[in-house]
Amino acid sequence: MKESFEEVEYEPTSVKDLLVEMKDTSELIIDLAYAAVMFDSDELAEEVRHLESRMDFLRYQMRMIALMASRTREDSERLAGILQVASAAETISNAAGDIVDLLEQRIEARPFLPFVLQEAEEKIRILRMSKKSSMLARDVADLRVESETGMRIIAIRRGRRWNYDPPSSTVLREGDLLIVRGTEDGYNRLTRYASGEEGWPG
Amino acid sequence: MKESFEEVEYEPTSVKDLLVEMKDTSELIIDLAYAAVMFDSDELAEEVRHLESRMDFLRYQMRMIALMASRTREDSERLAGILQVASAAETISNAAGDIVDLLEQRIEARPFLPFVLQEAEEKIRILRMSKKSSMLARDVADLRVESETGMRIIAIRRGRRWNYDPPSSTVLREGDLLIVRGTEDGYNRLTRYASGEEGWPG
Repeated sequence: MKESFEEVEYEPTSVKDLLVEMKDTSELIIDLAYAAVMFDSDELAEEVRHLESRMDFLRYQMRMIALMASRTREDSERLAGILQVASAAETISNAAGDIVDLLEQRIEARPFLPFVLQEAEEKIRILRMSKKSSMLARDVADLRVESETGMRIIAIRRGRRWNYDPPSSTVLREGDLLIVRGTEDGYNRLTRYASGEEGWPG
Repeated sequence: MKESFEEVEYEPTSVKDLLVEMKDTSELIIDLAYAAVMFDSDELAEEVRHLESRMDFLRYQMRMIALMASRTREDSERLAGILQVASAAETISNAAGDIVDLLEQRIEARPFLPFVLQEAEEKIRILRMSKKSSMLARDVADLRVESETGMRIIAIRRGRRWNYDPPSSTVLREGDLLIVRGTEDGYNRLTRYASGEEGWPG
């Protein structure tokens, strides 16, 4: 009993929460970086920069908490492992920053990325919600878009506002522009539902 | 007409193919690295090491071809962009290598990763194909596992043999162990199909 209590002590939930956020961010940021270059979007690139700074902040927080929490050799051993994964997640986010650096070049200098993302296993695509879609007025959690179609919504543009990694409570509306990631087949299915060509299955 | 021909000239298909492979690998390798630590698998870690070397090789090939193909200022500009994305993909694969370095530590030193992968948006899980599953004897392309369930199969273990990033022609068999990545909801659905509790929808 004491041991499991101690486990909570030297691995505070906040370190775990930080690591979960860092892992999630390291995945989102790569998708956003490819999308930024693909759609030549300064707004998406700006979000990548923002997440990159956030990752710096998270890693600093993580180090602080880890150093404060470490009391025994066992603590140090576990926390060193956590710091190593955190470091890997931050390295990934730096790579995303390198990708959006391409936006500083003339657009003629980067005509290849749409091709690459077209051919890659996981594709990044964009689609618009039609007023005829049966997905409207339902939230993403209720629709279970990812498990129904395999497509992950990485960003939604509504009017002039972007919503990155939209929470599952997001309700879809007519005209929403979705940036999604997944297979070609999943994209085709989702497009049929978004256009209203087919009714949502769930 | 001449222009589009030239475009093929100075951006040879092989550079694009290399970049597609590097992008796909940079995604697979991260999933495999997390799975290696999560399931304490030296075999998965070995595949991560193998892919890491492969990425070094691909980047070298890419540089060679790019340098040979570059003739004009415009060529150089485009090829520099390609090299930058290739470099980002390689950085990501190095981060995957850092993650599997954790396997060199005692297992007690890394009890946190299952927790993190449990809480993260995209989860890595394992499941076994039951003899009662209606998915058996069908290939992955035909089943369209990813667009039906949102789960991506990152590796299959059959007997003592691992199959990483299995091709879509892979036919599922009883006893296959699948390492999959996706949402909790998608995992639950796939588990029902894999166990035979529910028939495959497609």
